[in-house]
Amino acid sequence: MVIVLRPEATAAQAADLMHQIAALGLRPLHMPGSERVVLGALGDERILDRLHLESHPMVESVKPILAPYKLVAREMHSHDTVVELGGVPIGGDRIVVIAGPCAIESHDQMLASGQAVVAAGARVLRGGAFKPRTSPYAFQGLGLEGLQILREVSRELNTPTLTEVVDVADVEVVDRHADAFQLGARSMQNFRLLKAMGQSRKAVVLKRGPAAKIEDLLLAAEYILAEGNPNVILCERGVQTFDPATRNMLDLAAVPAIKARSHLPVIVDPSHGTGVREYVAPMSKAAIACGADGLLIEVHRDPSEALSDGKQSLFPAQFASLMRELAPFARAAGRAL
Amino acid sequence: MVIVLRPEATAAQAADLMHQIAALGLRPLHMPGSERVVLGALGDERILDRLHLESHPMVESVKPILAPYKLVAREMHSHDTVVELGGVPIGGDRIVVIAGPCAIESHDQMLASGQAVVAAGARVLRGGAFKPRTSPYAFQGLGLEGLQILREVSRELNTPTLTEVVDVADVEVVDRHADAFQLGARSMQNFRLLKAMGQSRKAVVLKRGPAAKIEDLLLAAEYILAEGNPNVILCERGVQTFDPATRNMLDLAAVPAIKARSHLPVIVDPSHGTGVREYVAPMSKAAIACGADGLLIEVHRDPSEALSDGKQSLFPAQFASLMRELAPFARAAGRAL
Amino acid sequence: MVIVLRPEATAAQAADLMHQIAALGLRPLHMPGSERVVLGALGDERILDRLHLESHPMVESVKPILAPYKLVAREMHSHDTVVELGGVPIGGDRIVVIAGPCAIESHDQMLASGQAVVAAGARVLRGGAFKPRTSPYAFQGLGLEGLQILREVSRELNTPTLTEVVDVADVEVVDRHADAFQLGARSMQNFRLLKAMGQSRKAVVLKRGPAAKIEDLLLAAEYILAEGNPNVILCERGVQTFDPATRNMLDLAAVPAIKARSHLPVIVDPSHGTGVREYVAPMSKAAIACGADGLLIEVHRDPSEALSDGKQSLFPAQFASLMRELAPFARAAGRAL
Amino acid sequence: MVIVLRPEATAAQAADLMHQIAALGLRPLHMPGSERVVLGALGDERILDRLHLESHPMVESVKPILAPYKLVAREMHSHDTVVELGGVPIGGDRIVVIAGPCAIESHDQMLASGQAVVAAGARVLRGGAFKPRTSPYAFQGLGLEGLQILREVSRELNTPTLTEVVDVADVEVVDRHADAFQLGARSMQNFRLLKAMGQSRKAVVLKRGPAAKIEDLLLAAEYILAEGNPNVILCERGVQTFDPATRNMLDLAAVPAIKARSHLPVIVDPSHGTGVREYVAPMSKAAIACGADGLLIEVHRDPSEALSDGKQSLFPAQFASLMRELAPFARAAGRAL
Repeated sequence: MVIVLRPEATAAQAADLMHQIAALGLRPLHMPGSERVVLGALGDERILDRLHLESHPMVESVKPILAPYKLVAREMHSHDTVVELGGVPIGGDRIVVIAGPCAIESHDQMLASGQAVVAAGARVLRGGAFKPRTSPYAFQGLGLEGLQILREVSRELNTPTLTEVVDVADVEVVDRHADAFQLGARSMQNFRLLKAMGQSRKAVVLKRGPAAKIEDLLLAAEYILAEGNPNVILCERGVQTFDPATRNMLDLAAVPAIKARSHLPVIVDPSHGTGVREYVAPMSKAAIACGADGLLIEVHRDPSEALSDGKQSLFPAQFASLMRELAPFARAAGRAL
Repeated sequence: MVIVLRPEATAAQAADLMHQIAALGLRPLHMPGSERVVLGALGDERILDRLHLESHPMVESVKPILAPYKLVAREMHSHDTVVELGGVPIGGDRIVVIAGPCAIESHDQMLASGQAVVAAGARVLRGGAFKPRTSPYAFQGLGLEGLQILREVSRELNTPTLTEVVDVADVEVVDRHADAFQLGARSMQNFRLLKAMGQSRKAVVLKRGPAAKIEDLLLAAEYILAEGNPNVILCERGVQTFDPATRNMLDLAAVPAIKARSHLPVIVDPSHGTGVREYVAPMSKAAIACGADGLLIEVHRDPSEALSDGKQSLFPAQFASLMRELAPFARAAGRAL
Repeated sequence: MVIVLRPEATAAQAADLMHQIAALGLRPLHMPGSERVVLGALGDERILDRLHLESHPMVESVKPILAPYKLVAREMHSHDTVVELGGVPIGGDRIVVIAGPCAIESHDQMLASGQAVVAAGARVLRGGAFKPRTSPYAFQGLGLEGLQILREVSRELNTPTLTEVVDVADVEVVDRHADAFQLGARSMQNFRLLKAMGQSRKAVVLKRGPAAKIEDLLLAAEYILAEGNPNVILCERGVQTFDPATRNMLDLAAVPAIKARSHLPVIVDPSHGTGVREYVAPMSKAAIACGADGLLIEVHRDPSEALSDGKQSLFPAQFASLMRELAPFARAAGRAL
Repeated sequence: MVIVLRPEATAAQAADLMHQIAALGLRPLHMPGSERVVLGALGDERILDRLHLESHPMVESVKPILAPYKLVAREMHSHDTVVELGGVPIGGDRIVVIAGPCAIESHDQMLASGQAVVAAGARVLRGGAFKPRTSPYAFQGLGLEGLQILREVSRELNTPTLTEVVDVADVEVVDRHADAFQLGARSMQNFRLLKAMGQSRKAVVLKRGPAAKIEDLLLAAEYILAEGNPNVILCERGVQTFDPATRNMLDLAAVPAIKARSHLPVIVDPSHGTGVREYVAPMSKAAIACGADGLLIEVHRDPSEALSDGKQSLFPAQFASLMRELAPFARAAGRAL
């Protein structure tokens, strides 16, 4: 249930109501807004009837949460959530570009790629140390060594980092080396890992699975919020369809569709979303035009040498040029880059 | 084969080569460019060897057309084609918005809707007289009466029109009443109808089928060009996937993917592409951002009364507001609206 | 509405009720069963209230038809329909195998292929004269000449024939030369052609489109029945998905899913459904095992020479061997071959 | 590379060749067949040239493994592999039915369901203790308590068991309580878990992901074999498509398609594959008809009370009846039940 309090309700009254909700065995939620406080109650909603909230003097309205996801739902939380990723706010006025190579291959490669993207305006570095690969014979990432490189480069460039975690057993070590967790498309329904993410308070970039409905993505995010971590950033990266013209089909309408359903920020990955270097720029512009809060772009100092995803990685000069071209689109969307 | 002539080749020399190509039983094509003339030869390419074109003094290069579509291919025609639709050029510097109701329901409804969209900046009117409907019990369109209304409103508003044709038997009557033909998604592989379109010289808006690969769409267009009508405008309108969050999944990456493969103009239909009124504006902006040459938008004077597709039709005020919001995106894309 | 009459209702009483239904502007349907008569009323069902049918002494029950398709629905017609195709009943105790080449290429080829399949037990001949092809440069069929060959071979082998019709303009000539119409997957939503099929009384094999939901297929069939032709045979032939391992994904669960929803017979085309010769035999057996009423199989006297679909066509010896292997599966399913 | 030895090659010669392969840094494989020994060499195949194997007197032929999966490929291993699951061979002459409830809910429920399925002929018990659920608010399984129940019931019924493992951290405890591991559809590309499965020698039932191509499934299996566990059973359970008529689309052609590519046994799960109780029987028959080595069927003592998947679970009497009906299909397929 969503319980909207009157503007004149005091903090003490809100706390008292939360206490009553908890006493019924339900989970109380506190969502202070700019004008009034909204409370939530998760669990068997019929029990709530006993409190006769509708006739409480400080309660404006009580309504059920119809969506199967609760904490993630727009109904629960009408204003957009801003998530901090290593000090960079995502979901606010500025569009955030996260960039870097698919995989961390060496300190040199990571530093050169990182310098290039930061110089061009990227505000978060990406790079994978644990690479989920379809084939067991493909490069699987540098593991711990990769994480160490990422942390060093992060310090040298004074830029926060995002890196993928693929297993519960790695959560701790990734936590020590990076500023935010990425859950890849293939891990979107690794529910144990989602719960582990809920134990952290760091930002989690949750990528949509290749066969995930928008509702599935929101329910996966709900796992993280239900465990206590509100810092989730959703990422559209294309779904699998029948057309081989692109590696995945980038579902940009997911951006307004998610924003209609949820208060969480949404970013777009045009690199995996198309799989073709030449389409990254147009789809980055389109993502900003339809309301995305950020972009996740693969850039490698030399894509022809990349150990993975070279075909979809931008050359540094292409990335710099893209950043310049994005600015007027961000302005048209009423935002800054 | 694509035969690129030297800049100094004369018209007579080009004509002579075309004559030799035809004499072999191949189909010659003449593609004059700004700097040099390109010839094409369609048919069994091995026969062409007999002409020893590579050693001809006026031939710069000879290369095979690798794409399964030939006339439609970018290889054949490196600059973008501009198609005239009732005097309005599509594919050039100005982005063209085609708008109007899904179905023509009455003169009043068509006129009111048409006035609203023209006043807001639409340059072509749309409206269906023959409606392909999944159920035999759904409204099937006004037929000839609808076409007559469309022509009257077109004259009253001095604006060209686009309307759907669903059967070869209707081509003539549609031709008499409208300025351009639309082939709907379900007719994209009605090959007899495609051939009939090839007999016309009017513009044809060819919509991508719900399960059509980009290659299938280009081969469908090839049917029209192969019959002699070069005036084809391709339209991305979403494909069918597993996610019910939107009516179709709008594949905006199809815009750069088509432009990489073909010289034909590409427009986007965000109304069918999403099926949700609220998503039409963001996806219109995104379409322009990624390079679309135009938009096809459903607007009804009162969507709540619409006999079809009301859920995805804009109110006139929403359309007017959208047109204002699109302008800065068009400028960011280096174009005008 | 479905109006079930009491067992003791007379024919005159049924006729009287139908008269009353028609007088309201609804379309009455007469469905005599072995024990009692069922009437139907198509149109705005609310009007029917005026007749107070529930209190009529000869009416046992009145219930709405919930499915969007009415005439096709199982609710309307609880026993399985048997459709005659040139004298061969489809949908009864015997499983019917329809076989022949994809395209009619010559009299020799059609006769040799036809003799082989008839000798092996096929009871209907197939062969296409009008071939819908993705590319305009692919073999498009022999047209009228092909139909003439088909008719000659049909007479020589004393076996009825099935052939595809792709346009309303060809319906008459196909009708003169063949025993049944096939609507191909790409024509499943050619509504004008569906209506034309409804004007005939010959059997129509309606193939599921590559992106058609089962509901879409049933609504397409409804177009034919609504025009007056009850002789529709549905055909599952695979849908388009993301996996290139097979040409289409054969959805065999469509067989029980259709039979749960509709009384029409269902056949399966494992040739298009897989696109791979080696998978035709196992999928034919599976189709029979899950309840299909027949099979549509491509057989060519020499698939390596076939002008279309050679990769999925069986050699005559393979077909003969398959027919022998199918017999015990038909028996296990309680049917004969 | 696949290195086929001559029939007269001795074990010592084979061992010597394997030694030479290992000395190059490649991974040698020993695949003794009934007539001759086949060796494999995994790794950078160009290095192998140094051994000049083609001219070795005991080598009959050397050929590359073209498939991206190596150990799993049919090329490597021409006869069908039989995997033992708790003493029950899967992949041999007898078709194996694995049955039981979706989730273990209580000792009573598991015992009653287990007694029913074993009495009817199931040879392996299934039941989930860790349930991956789309929503965090759905029943997540009994965990360790569920595993204990499963082990007790297994002993009481003297029947081996299969249960799902969802995280590397649970592998050990599942190993202690069950006879085989199931990797669910959502875990098919949990590569860390796949590698952990490779450390075991117990049978692993690997379910195809909802968006997994057959090639993806085979590459996932390759992860397990590459780590040393050859006991993998592949399971087709439907993929996600656009049609809501069934929960998933059961891709039965995957059975012959996998068998053409791989030597591993294949079973089919018609319960998840359709999501509808009424379609389980026809699709079970079809699975056997097209060559499946076994079935995985959900049966609950009372599906209306089931905490998960009740809609697709069979009643015990339905399962008993299905087992009787399957027998003639197994015989038609040349196998026993």
